[in-house]
Amino acid sequence: VLESDTECPASGLCNRFVKGDIRDYETVLAFGRQVDVLTIEIEHVNLEALEELEREGKTVIPRPKALRIIRDKILQKEYYRGHSIPSPEFIVVKDRAELMSRADFLPAVQKIGMGGYDGRGVIVMREAADMEQGFDSPSVLEKLVDIDKELALIVAIGAGREESVYPPVEMVFDPVLNLLDYQICPAVLPEKIFWKVEAIALTVARNFDSPGLFAVELFTDKAGNVYVNETAPRVHNSGHHTIEAHYCSQYDMLMRILLGLPPGNTDMILPSLMLNLLGEPGHSGPADYVGLNDVLRIDNAFVHIYGKRETRPGRKMGHVTVLSREKQELLHQASVVKRTLKVQAKAT
Amino acid sequence: VLESDTECPASGLCNRFVKGDIRDYETVLAFGRQVDVLTIEIEHVNLEALEELEREGKTVIPRPKALRIIRDKILQKEYYRGHSIPSPEFIVVKDRAELMSRADFLPAVQKIGMGGYDGRGVIVMREAADMEQGFDSPSVLEKLVDIDKELALIVAIGAGREESVYPPVEMVFDPVLNLLDYQICPAVLPEKIFWKVEAIALTVARNFDSPGLFAVELFTDKAGNVYVNETAPRVHNSGHHTIEAHYCSQYDMLMRILLGLPPGNTDMILPSLMLNLLGEPGHSGPADYVGLNDVLRIDNAFVHIYGKRETRPGRKMGHVTVLSREKQELLHQASVVKRTLKVQAKAT
Repeated sequence: VLESDTECPASGLCNRFVKGDIRDYETVLAFGRQVDVLTIEIEHVNLEALEELEREGKTVIPRPKALRIIRDKILQKEYYRGHSIPSPEFIVVKDRAELMSRADFLPAVQKIGMGGYDGRGVIVMREAADMEQGFDSPSVLEKLVDIDKELALIVAIGAGREESVYPPVEMVFDPVLNLLDYQICPAVLPEKIFWKVEAIALTVARNFDSPGLFAVELFTDKAGNVYVNETAPRVHNSGHHTIEAHYCSQYDMLMRILLGLPPGNTDMILPSLMLNLLGEPGHSGPADYVGLNDVLRIDNAFVHIYGKRETRPGRKMGHVTVLSREKQELLHQASVVKRTLKVQAKAT
Repeated sequence: VLESDTECPASGLCNRFVKGDIRDYETVLAFGRQVDVLTIEIEHVNLEALEELEREGKTVIPRPKALRIIRDKILQKEYYRGHSIPSPEFIVVKDRAELMSRADFLPAVQKIGMGGYDGRGVIVMREAADMEQGFDSPSVLEKLVDIDKELALIVAIGAGREESVYPPVEMVFDPVLNLLDYQICPAVLPEKIFWKVEAIALTVARNFDSPGLFAVELFTDKAGNVYVNETAPRVHNSGHHTIEAHYCSQYDMLMRILLGLPPGNTDMILPSLMLNLLGEPGHSGPADYVGLNDVLRIDNAFVHIYGKRETRPGRKMGHVTVLSREKQELLHQASVVKRTLKVQAKAT
């Protein structure tokens, strides 16, 4: 593992840890030359180094040419258009001045071309005044969709281009009461929508011409349309439940792809619900997991603490997966977890 | 992790690996002084060092006084007798001369007092002539039981002495055809035997007066009697299936005990079958897993390769767990795994 933070969660879980900046060309090149196969856990790894390593004969998964498309929201949107993959209508704006001239396109979402991650780099713009806070750099301005459901689906492409598809998950948010947000698997979808979602996600993953895991996020609207929101070329938050709930977890699947082994079984063992553990608002500092012992006593809950030293408001500090055949039981336990377990800063 | 082999399976899975002899007093003492909590993965760790560390205030799980009983088969048998725990009738012999004088006790099993492990240190003696190959050291001579079933059951005792019991597993051997040996969970037992097995295993674990995981191996005979064979005070081969088949694996449970967290849920998610992957007879050297790709394609099989470099005849190199609600499906896939996957030495 190459990372600049020697206390990052992966540092104690690898055979060899190298401290270094993943954005630096020489660092990534030197690291890559010592290994047989490389993969990434975030899109911001130095791409030119990965390209050079691939030219030198190293196996890089996903292939740098797929990363080049995905890491830039503008190229990613053009990729969807080029492959007739339904995705919200968009225009490209090069800076804030151009953005401000396109109030006709609202309501819309501005997505920064390079450098966004995990909700950062995205602004919803309902009226012209919202544009003043817009990003002053090359971006996508995307029509706002009247979302019915938010879905995600992981496609695994093997070294021999074998295709495996995980069941779609549904992300559920409560923007009004903000009581609970979670992800449930499988998503409950009409049959026709289900097939559309699978076919679209497969088309997205297949055309990158690369082995790897591709997490495709999609929307549906009330009219039954399906749109691709974005794609991540790596293990993904929407696949955490696969650790316990599926025969082959997304991590096991990635290892199989990296090692050239046959694909695993994406089937569910049990339906599941997954909640992210986010740092509490107003809390920054050494993390304290208040209520942890109570949640560890829940019979069908699996608690994952990532071991990050410091919490910050909204930081992903872990997740909890609940397994049950009964949807009401999933929802009930999620609600118990959500009100019991809080990531706060330790009192000093 | 403290171990003398720097390429042992745990070496790449810990935050810090220390090379050293677990049987050496000074080595274990120096290692233990650097940590907060200690546990063991084999009974032959230097006991005097663990006792000293406990005196110095370190948490040692299981407690050295429990280890002292368990590591010596003579003390272990006397422990069962002292707590009225049913176990095959036995006598103690101090050397081969005394052994040879007790042919009246046959058929019996000689178990060496100290140093036996994983089937080593045990000889079945049906007639007087067998005694000539017997161990010439302090041993237990135990009456041979007419075994109906071999069972194992893991009891977890928490830091606060909370007791959790895993469902019993049945070990199935085929001594005649030697086609297949495996372990199935749950064991199918008459209700009365089931309660007896649980009550006996709990009595065994509870009286050690120590937190820890205790794997209790038992026999039943055709008359419905239950006997304790032996106990291991650690994670155990008979608990490997808990990784996928139970809510809380034996490893998760041990971590909870070490960290003083509440006990986990020992319930099954699905019935399971577990097969050890043993080194093929006649093969010694760098390991080659022939048929691995075929077994990785089985939808409900989980393959664990321990990463030991060298195979030897009968060496435990990994295991495979199969999950299914259907017993016939478990048996079918076990048979497929057994005839497909072989651990051989690489052709040189």
